[in-house]
Amino acid sequence: MKIDSVDFFYLAMPQVLDIGDGSQDALLVRVRSGSHEGWGECEAAPLPSIAAFVCPMSHSACKPVGASVLGQALDGPEDIDRIGRLVRENSLDLLQSDHVLSGLDIAMWDLVGKREGEPVWRLLGWGKSEPKTPYASMLFGGNPAETLAKARKAASDGFGAVKFGWGPYGRGDGKEDREQVAAAREGVGSGAALLVDAGTVWVEDVGAARKRLAALEEFHVTWLEEPFVSGALHAYRELASSCRTVKLAGGEGSHDFHMARQMIDYGSVGFIQIDTGRVGGISAAKRVADYARERGVIYVNHTFTSHLALSASLQPYAGVEGNSLCEYPFEARALAVELTAGRIGRAADGSVRAPDSPGLGLSPNPKAMRKYLVDTEITVAGKTLYRTPSI
Amino acid sequence: MKIDSVDFFYLAMPQVLDIGDGSQDALLVRVRSGSHEGWGECEAAPLPSIAAFVCPMSHSACKPVGASVLGQALDGPEDIDRIGRLVRENSLDLLQSDHVLSGLDIAMWDLVGKREGEPVWRLLGWGKSEPKTPYASMLFGGNPAETLAKARKAASDGFGAVKFGWGPYGRGDGKEDREQVAAAREGVGSGAALLVDAGTVWVEDVGAARKRLAALEEFHVTWLEEPFVSGALHAYRELASSCRTVKLAGGEGSHDFHMARQMIDYGSVGFIQIDTGRVGGISAAKRVADYARERGVIYVNHTFTSHLALSASLQPYAGVEGNSLCEYPFEARALAVELTAGRIGRAADGSVRAPDSPGLGLSPNPKAMRKYLVDTEITVAGKTLYRTPSI
Repeated sequence: MKIDSVDFFYLAMPQVLDIGDGSQDALLVRVRSGSHEGWGECEAAPLPSIAAFVCPMSHSACKPVGASVLGQALDGPEDIDRIGRLVRENSLDLLQSDHVLSGLDIAMWDLVGKREGEPVWRLLGWGKSEPKTPYASMLFGGNPAETLAKARKAASDGFGAVKFGWGPYGRGDGKEDREQVAAAREGVGSGAALLVDAGTVWVEDVGAARKRLAALEEFHVTWLEEPFVSGALHAYRELASSCRTVKLAGGEGSHDFHMARQMIDYGSVGFIQIDTGRVGGISAAKRVADYARERGVIYVNHTFTSHLALSASLQPYAGVEGNSLCEYPFEARALAVELTAGRIGRAADGSVRAPDSPGLGLSPNPKAMRKYLVDTEITVAGKTLYRTPSI
Repeated sequence: MKIDSVDFFYLAMPQVLDIGDGSQDALLVRVRSGSHEGWGECEAAPLPSIAAFVCPMSHSACKPVGASVLGQALDGPEDIDRIGRLVRENSLDLLQSDHVLSGLDIAMWDLVGKREGEPVWRLLGWGKSEPKTPYASMLFGGNPAETLAKARKAASDGFGAVKFGWGPYGRGDGKEDREQVAAAREGVGSGAALLVDAGTVWVEDVGAARKRLAALEEFHVTWLEEPFVSGALHAYRELASSCRTVKLAGGEGSHDFHMARQMIDYGSVGFIQIDTGRVGGISAAKRVADYARERGVIYVNHTFTSHLALSASLQPYAGVEGNSLCEYPFEARALAVELTAGRIGRAADGSVRAPDSPGLGLSPNPKAMRKYLVDTEITVAGKTLYRTPSI
């Protein structure tokens, strides 16, 4: 079976706010082969990603992503791997290509799973989809009182694990940050897992991060996420050596397997967080999950958008036992909420699992897509390279 | 002084061939502030880079690059640094942004240098622009006889150092590769420095690379460049431990300071190769040059395009003494050759130097730009975000 067509759909809320909420727009990919189709979501800036799929070739190692995908055979997982290697080779110098490949890879897994009537996790070699402990992923409130209210809401919604991130955290002095963490702990209760996401706020300043450790350990925070930019491995390792109970988490910025491996090999993270919509898709993410397990590092998904992205992000570590943590979008915008007809709900015990139905187990809702579709057109040298497809 | 405008110009040869020659298209950036302007070149896929400058915001850490640049104060080098940090922070999740920043950073240095009447290298703190030994950078011939002829041509053109790369090298068996290297050595003569660029052909396969080492050392090759993709640091380090006389070179894929630092810290390279048009510009490249010197690693530019790019790539290590090697475009296409009116010529002794004139010391030729300009238009939600500016 050949890949007959690949279509990108750029969706956005009518108004996109200047806040750290990645669910305000979306880039969906549809791959069609014969009578089957699969869907994926890139966790990426839509316009540059579309441009990276359709742009003219610059040279042999800077080709548009489309050149390595359209018309390729897609008979099974080995073709997904082969196409991924082709993209990496042919688009080596096209930086955005890793983010584009991510959605494509997901869509190819979805398509192959649906065609074979198997959930993706089974095609990846897992025997069972194990329950995960979802954590509600939220932005810090503008002040401790707001954070307290948000934490209480998450607790009353039955979440046994809650993550706060971004907002004012790390930007003021250590005292304000301590009050934010104290409020979060008070709101979620003493039994819940509390996670803190610094959103790379200290870039590579180990001293600034170290000042916050005492408060994080005082309130029994499980992990401190992204104190630094992904590349600052020396800073990660140095900070890790100052941690007593809190562990470092990071890796969402990884746009290939190697970057994630380096966070494990050289950055001393305790948790490796992978966004399948950025790292190169389910294929690269599975490789990270396997490598992390070998090295005693805990794999966790990074997902802040739709339940389509959530399903894709659960597949790579679906079979890992022991109620692993799982990032669960909690405050997503209407676009992300409406995007799929089905959703990955929480079971009576609060856990979530990768769906048992074929492929990713859920598909985008065309009606919702039409509602949020952003008309886009790209013309180069008199030729229209992209025009928003109809859905 | 504020940044009044930033304009991108996409240039391309009438026909772009499927070969490893990055001089077939170009993306130029012009920054204007008051009565001054500066020029830079991104070593990047033009269309996705333009899209990354103008795209709508996705969220607070995924803004278009333009949002961090337009209207900013540009009074001196400290503003270039500040704007670079703004771009990294505001476009953290926009992968292509590092390549866009690269050309912008170069253009800002050019502008500030011209305004202050100083060459960029002096603003970077160097006291003198030291001579470099240029190496002719060429693709391997399709067979050893072709390579021999190319090597003889470079030698007769007075190059004391020659690099061959890409083409068939590494794709056949070790015997063919040995013949290619033997032909290159025969052609350049026994006194010249011979360099080999594998163009990431073995991805991360240390065994495949190791098989070629004996021939490289037999023909006294100075460095083996990019045996693996930039991220495969474990592979670099493992191969380095098998090298006796040949050193490893790499780093051109680095799109920020941290990636380059990791090649030094964990990849055991002997030469770190930086493309100012990819790493984040002259600012990030200077940081790499300083770090390399601290660690006893030799910094070399990566440049395969125009003399505008060559000047930008010489600035970060202009003051390093001892006739360092310098990549010198030798087979560039007409576009890259015609792009600048002035050129960085070789002195009587064959050496080249960063120009002493203000800024980068040369500017694009508008007539050549008009000849190769590619009409481009991007429209999102009924609004034209980009249209090729006139020149």
